[in-house]
Amino acid sequence: MIYYKYIRINVLIDQIKVINKFRFRKMAKLIDGNKISKEVLNEVSEELKKIQQKHPDFKPTLAIVQVGDRSDSNVYIGNKIKRAAEVGMDAKLVKLSNQITQVELEDEIDKLNKDHYVDGIIVQLPLDCVNEIDADSVIDQIHPAKDVDGLTRINAGKLMRGELKNTIFPCTPYGCLYLVQKATGDPNYVVGKRVVVVGRSKIVGSPAAALFMWHHGTTTICHSKTKDLKEVCKEADILIVAIGKEELIKGDWVKPGAVVIDCGINVRELEGGKRKLFGDVEFSSAQSVAGYITPVPGGVGPMTVAMLIKNTFQQGKARRLQA
Amino acid sequence: MIYYKYIRINVLIDQIKVINKFRFRKMAKLIDGNKISKEVLNEVSEELKKIQQKHPDFKPTLAIVQVGDRSDSNVYIGNKIKRAAEVGMDAKLVKLSNQITQVELEDEIDKLNKDHYVDGIIVQLPLDCVNEIDADSVIDQIHPAKDVDGLTRINAGKLMRGELKNTIFPCTPYGCLYLVQKATGDPNYVVGKRVVVVGRSKIVGSPAAALFMWHHGTTTICHSKTKDLKEVCKEADILIVAIGKEELIKGDWVKPGAVVIDCGINVRELEGGKRKLFGDVEFSSAQSVAGYITPVPGGVGPMTVAMLIKNTFQQGKARRLQA
Repeated sequence: MIYYKYIRINVLIDQIKVINKFRFRKMAKLIDGNKISKEVLNEVSEELKKIQQKHPDFKPTLAIVQVGDRSDSNVYIGNKIKRAAEVGMDAKLVKLSNQITQVELEDEIDKLNKDHYVDGIIVQLPLDCVNEIDADSVIDQIHPAKDVDGLTRINAGKLMRGELKNTIFPCTPYGCLYLVQKATGDPNYVVGKRVVVVGRSKIVGSPAAALFMWHHGTTTICHSKTKDLKEVCKEADILIVAIGKEELIKGDWVKPGAVVIDCGINVRELEGGKRKLFGDVEFSSAQSVAGYITPVPGGVGPMTVAMLIKNTFQQGKARRLQA
Repeated sequence: MIYYKYIRINVLIDQIKVINKFRFRKMAKLIDGNKISKEVLNEVSEELKKIQQKHPDFKPTLAIVQVGDRSDSNVYIGNKIKRAAEVGMDAKLVKLSNQITQVELEDEIDKLNKDHYVDGIIVQLPLDCVNEIDADSVIDQIHPAKDVDGLTRINAGKLMRGELKNTIFPCTPYGCLYLVQKATGDPNYVVGKRVVVVGRSKIVGSPAAALFMWHHGTTTICHSKTKDLKEVCKEADILIVAIGKEELIKGDWVKPGAVVIDCGINVRELEGGKRKLFGDVEFSSAQSVAGYITPVPGGVGPMTVAMLIKNTFQQGKARRLQA
């Protein structure tokens, strides 16, 4: 009889364990890029309103240079113009013919550089042009103080060397950093952490590695030639992925408790012609290992535009009001 | 009797093991910076002689801008002028008063930029000036194609983004890369290797991390905020140290077989007022663990000047002969 009770108690304990395993299964906190990006935009909007009480004519302006008429570019540009309007800023589209030459395009940039009322200039990529254009050279024509995408070589050089003051950070890496700081609630969260950046593009990976390193992370940059990528990813307290390969990073590549920031935007055609976005991280497996994780969509994506608006606002303020 | 023989054989085997341990104790191959730097200089000299058969007036020229009269700077400058002369190049010293202003100094740089016969311009640091000078701004005045120290922001930005063509690499990191390639006999040795750079200075650490990453190493950059530096160093197949702390890195911080490149130059005062140079790596303990190691002095040091000469020669050739 006593023995029988003992077995029953053990069965009960096992059942409780199973229930708890599901009930308390550790799931990563979701990093809500939509919400955090709105907070950024609201802050800009509030600060701008305050400034306008003293300087009613101050309306920061973003110039978007578009060559040709790519439909995907039109969507992205529409989104940027909408966000600018929401915070009370101006965004003007400089739409140029797909017949334009390098020299003509650089002249357009120069005009915007000289325009007192233009605070930020971006060139929408990729260019849609019948002529061969060196896009890097075009972007390098942008005055460093108006380079709100942070993509000129001057800004890249300053970032690499840790001259963080008066340097404009590229929007996506800046958004990644902001997400880590906001999600963890600690502006110094990066300090001393192992940071692994997967991908070394000009726009995301390379500047992200520099940005996180100068925020005092011990930063490793991985790329197509990296051996044993899985093992390197597992070292990361903060894992930034921007490699453009759908769901490459699996849950067992992630260190338990890590912050996972997924910059990937991969479109998968589903049955019936529907399309769905996927990141570079396999969300389903990673979310039960990570401490924090961004979804796709709704993670890094909305941050990029928010940081563009923030950069433009900051540069306008610095150049027009503090000069 | 059989048992006795058995014991004797075992004792013998043990003795042989002990002897072999000492006899075949693995010692790192010494990377001879003096020899390799001479090879670099000889190659420049030979190629220059060939060119001069067709272009007898072609004499690449390095302009060294010195502000004030620091005695250590005088030694370094003397060394650069000597090396230039040895390969048949010119080096001219532009020695300026320690009373000079920022504007005057930048004007001097502009003059050298415009001088057809000047192929490379360097500013000897630190400046010895009674006025406050922004050295970064002065260096940024150097035309990117004459920036043979590779220290303008434009060159730094290009390096960060992997635009290796037409980018001038900073001399010390370039020397480090060259030593790894030459010592191992494999120009692709870095590809896929774990590279750890200790230190993030503008002149060595930061550009070294970018340079090795764009030569396809999986590169980690460590600094004063790195936790558990020893463990990170032990991950390195190639360990580049430029932290300025005498013998910080011990032998048991080094992965067996790793290539260890020591950029440190620390002066220790010995008894009797003598001075001796030490690196950032404890050579005595590291040499029995590493596969390859640079000594201090005679490792990275001579490479820096050799790469400066090589950069100047390359830029002169590109601008004057291939334009």
